Amino acid sequence: MARWQPGARERLVLAAVDLFTEQGYDATTVAQIAERAGVTKSTFFRHFPDKRELLVAGQDALSRLLADGITEAPADATPLQAVAAGLERASSTMGPMNRELGPRLKAAVAASAELQERDALKSVGLAAAMTDALVARGVPDPVAHLAAELGVLAFKRGYAEWSEGDDADDDLAPHALAALEDLRAATASLG
Amino acid sequence: MARWQPGARERLVLAAVDLFTEQGYDATTVAQIAERAGVTKSTFFRHFPDKRELLVAGQDALSRLLADGITEAPADATPLQAVAAGLERASSTMGPMNRELGPRLKAAVAASAELQERDALKSVGLAAAMTDALVARGVPDPVAHLAAELGVLAFKRGYAEWSEGDDADDDLAPHALAALEDLRAATASLG
Repeated sequence: MARWQPGARERLVLAAVDLFTEQGYDATTVAQIAERAGVTKSTFFRHFPDKRELLVAGQDALSRLLADGITEAPADATPLQAVAAGLERASSTMGPMNRELGPRLKAAVAASAELQERDALKSVGLAAAMTDALVARGVPDPVAHLAAELGVLAFKRGYAEWSEGDDADDDLAPHALAALEDLRAATASLG
Repeated sequence: MARWQPGARERLVLAAVDLFTEQGYDATTVAQIAERAGVTKSTFFRHFPDKRELLVAGQDALSRLLADGITEAPADATPLQAVAAGLERASSTMGPMNRELGPRLKAAVAASAELQERDALKSVGLAAAMTDALVARGVPDPVAHLAAELGVLAFKRGYAEWSEGDDADDDLAPHALAALEDLRAATASLG
């Protein structure tokens, strides 16, 4: 049971993800999403132009937060310290809604080839946003790309761990930062 | 000008990629691909069940080659040495057809959101195949995942560099292995 009161926007996202899981992305209409969320179609369209944007909106915001955290990290931060600042910035906006969404989104993606493709493109987009922010700090290309990939892996691993737990006071940031540290440590064992 | 004589299968792939670029993936029909390649629709269906499989076929073969090279690397190979063996195995099958395809496929992907999503999923699939092969060798999870990501980045970078050059005697393997070495060296600068 949810221990928080979602607004219309949050209810729409949760309803959409559940419907995508139950009946597929293509077969799900805006009218069905609105009905399941208990709002009118007009309310849907006040929040999202279409069902595709409902998925993309969160991704754009996440890319921006990760990049902003990197950009605003102290000038003497190493590439991975800057990535850690990006993870902290993005994590700070993730509340109960995001946590509840985690397992549901995972189920929806597992059930749909189309959502798997979008999810893969999302990872590429997040890595590109972080790479660009690192390059703008003067980090040379292969290092920037690699640091960004570690950041995406850390965010995904941290998010998965966090959203599977059930302690309401638990924050995402420590999970993402621990995953980043694990990956950093793993670089010493690549050979 | 091609300095090699492509067979029907190769002509179909090249024709399809060019048509995807010119008019989009959705708008391209099997009949158009066959006509452009100078073969009948029956010939298309002898090689591929549909236009989607035409794209996926190469990916499955590539995943298998990368994984086989990793599996058969010497028992004392480090994770990155095993990845290098995978890159060499996959590179050894790449001839003039793959080289000619590189820039065309890049143009097709740049022109199509749908192909971007498929291309992103392809990277995820290659990384998963390499991760599984490394885990089967006893490489622990975060190291395996990281080594696989480096392998995918190295393959993509090496392939891009190779397919942009114009020396017919040039092989893919040295480009992919040099990119892997650059990425390995970059791990020392992550901070």
